[in-house]
Amino acid sequence: MPGKSYVMIMAGGGGTRLWPASRKRRPKQFLPLLPNGQTLLGATVERLAALVPPERMMVVTAASQVPDVERTAPSVPKANIVIEPQARNTAACIGLGAIEVLRRDPEGILAVVPSDQYAWKLEPYQAAVRHALEVAAQGVVVTVGIPPTGPETGFGYLEPGDEKLGARIVKRFVEKPDRATAERYLASGYLWNSGMFFFSAARILQAIRQHLPALGEILDEIFADPDKASTLYPQAPSTSIDYGVMEKLSPGEVFVVPGDFGWNDVGSWSAIPAITPPDADGNFTLGDSVTIDARGNVLYGDKGRIISVVGLNDLVIVATDEAVLVMPKDRAQDVKDIVRALEKSKRETYL
Amino acid sequence: MPGKSYVMIMAGGGGTRLWPASRKRRPKQFLPLLPNGQTLLGATVERLAALVPPERMMVVTAASQVPDVERTAPSVPKANIVIEPQARNTAACIGLGAIEVLRRDPEGILAVVPSDQYAWKLEPYQAAVRHALEVAAQGVVVTVGIPPTGPETGFGYLEPGDEKLGARIVKRFVEKPDRATAERYLASGYLWNSGMFFFSAARILQAIRQHLPALGEILDEIFADPDKASTLYPQAPSTSIDYGVMEKLSPGEVFVVPGDFGWNDVGSWSAIPAITPPDADGNFTLGDSVTIDARGNVLYGDKGRIISVVGLNDLVIVATDEAVLVMPKDRAQDVKDIVRALEKSKRETYL
Repeated sequence: MPGKSYVMIMAGGGGTRLWPASRKRRPKQFLPLLPNGQTLLGATVERLAALVPPERMMVVTAASQVPDVERTAPSVPKANIVIEPQARNTAACIGLGAIEVLRRDPEGILAVVPSDQYAWKLEPYQAAVRHALEVAAQGVVVTVGIPPTGPETGFGYLEPGDEKLGARIVKRFVEKPDRATAERYLASGYLWNSGMFFFSAARILQAIRQHLPALGEILDEIFADPDKASTLYPQAPSTSIDYGVMEKLSPGEVFVVPGDFGWNDVGSWSAIPAITPPDADGNFTLGDSVTIDARGNVLYGDKGRIISVVGLNDLVIVATDEAVLVMPKDRAQDVKDIVRALEKSKRETYL
Repeated sequence: MPGKSYVMIMAGGGGTRLWPASRKRRPKQFLPLLPNGQTLLGATVERLAALVPPERMMVVTAASQVPDVERTAPSVPKANIVIEPQARNTAACIGLGAIEVLRRDPEGILAVVPSDQYAWKLEPYQAAVRHALEVAAQGVVVTVGIPPTGPETGFGYLEPGDEKLGARIVKRFVEKPDRATAERYLASGYLWNSGMFFFSAARILQAIRQHLPALGEILDEIFADPDKASTLYPQAPSTSIDYGVMEKLSPGEVFVVPGDFGWNDVGSWSAIPAITPPDADGNFTLGDSVTIDARGNVLYGDKGRIISVVGLNDLVIVATDEAVLVMPKDRAQDVKDIVRALEKSKRETYL
């Protein structure tokens, strides 16, 4: 009989791609970006709640964000909130989660998923996760690959090979490509790397020991004595699971389950129309708005602040206590330039 | 020897033409609309400070706005802040100010000026006020007329006649015209009614007694017993000085001094570029901003909130604690439609 399944949601880390709503201390998984004020973390928990009972639903996050997790994912037991003593990227984070599962269940199988993605087709999503967990129970590493909808340069890709174990062998993982390469990948049937991974706790820790031995040692010591986490974990190498482990596994060791379930990584404000329905006036309002001759705008105001627009279409307007951002939807990627300008002019206080 | 001159600045009243920065309880004369955070009231006091000493500089306002007056016009003595027990339009307001002057000085001459206008040519402005005060000292009512720069439909006009007493007789005052009428006025040499008036306290009270006898009686009673103001003043007819008195005076009783001094009534957000210089990036920023590929925008953020814009020109962006407004500069008049929509949808709390 295979081990039981555990869900481990990675909810640490920050980011400014949705600045000024998302900030270093208020990352996007905790923002009310979905209808009825739901957060991406809350929606992720909800999607996966059908697959594992609450006692096997875990969240890894920073100590400072525990209140955000408790507020936006109240069904997760407090004992299942795993605290990263310091952000050390996904390899360390996943390793920490794996030893927490190992303590509870030496046979445990993990579904590791980011907290800040969206999937709007619930049943295909759950089916893909179930399928990936079944394959992972055979002792291999599994990922879900998203059939690309265009030559995106913002995602990593993976090349699927032959079928085996009810999935497909991953021939290789590749980093974010340039446009021409992305088009070639698209034509060759590559899939987007969703950042979702499935494996037994024992299997991933073995892979970490092999490919990131310094991290492996630290994790073994923390497993033996949990009190050492606060001093040892910050010394872990800061490496992504993709670069540190996935890309180093051999084709027979890692498999992909394709998943077509309306996946969205909510990488910029222009993603909002894909994850929230338009209001009666044809705008995508998160909060409160009043508009005249205005359509197709993304309008985000926190804390009951109202956004009013006259005679403008297809803009992004975001308002928080500290900052307001206004730009055309098709320039949503340029938030990074504003962030850079604020850093350059010593106004990091707004970030 | 003529009486001494007094300045009486009308700083009561609210308005939503600069919503959401100006609100019912926070009218535009108290907003930091000018460079270095100066307010229109503060600038008005400063322009007139060369003409009268502080003890003859008075401000009429509502009790609730006394703190705003003290903060933005600190040179005005507290004893010279005259409180309207209730807003009763300009005829009553001016009458109340006139009896306050009469108490101090039976010969006093008043320059009555709105607190929410701007004039950027200081010397011509002061010269016009001095000139108007001199004419008023001869016992007549005087106004300053602004040479129109276009067929504006948002202002009242007046028709100047023959020269007399060093000024020109006003043949008639006319209300805000439609466009065709405004063009005719422009061609006929009409002037804009600036809303600035000059007269002795005794003369205006006499005119009020004649043309608004109910108000005249109330003012006489308040003059006899100031304690009666709180009960009697709210019963005063709510009439503008233009409609209640000026339009009813005969041509020989009221005179106009033309004044060409960069006058601006700051009637909408599109007026800001006329009263504040552009920043290094070509935007009109009141507060703090960061812009990329953005020019000609009016950017107003209160309380240190930063306004950031990417790839948009000639917009108005206003952000306060309660609301954000975004519109093209040339639709700045449509703020009233937003205000109406908020009223209609029972969201007056934002007004």
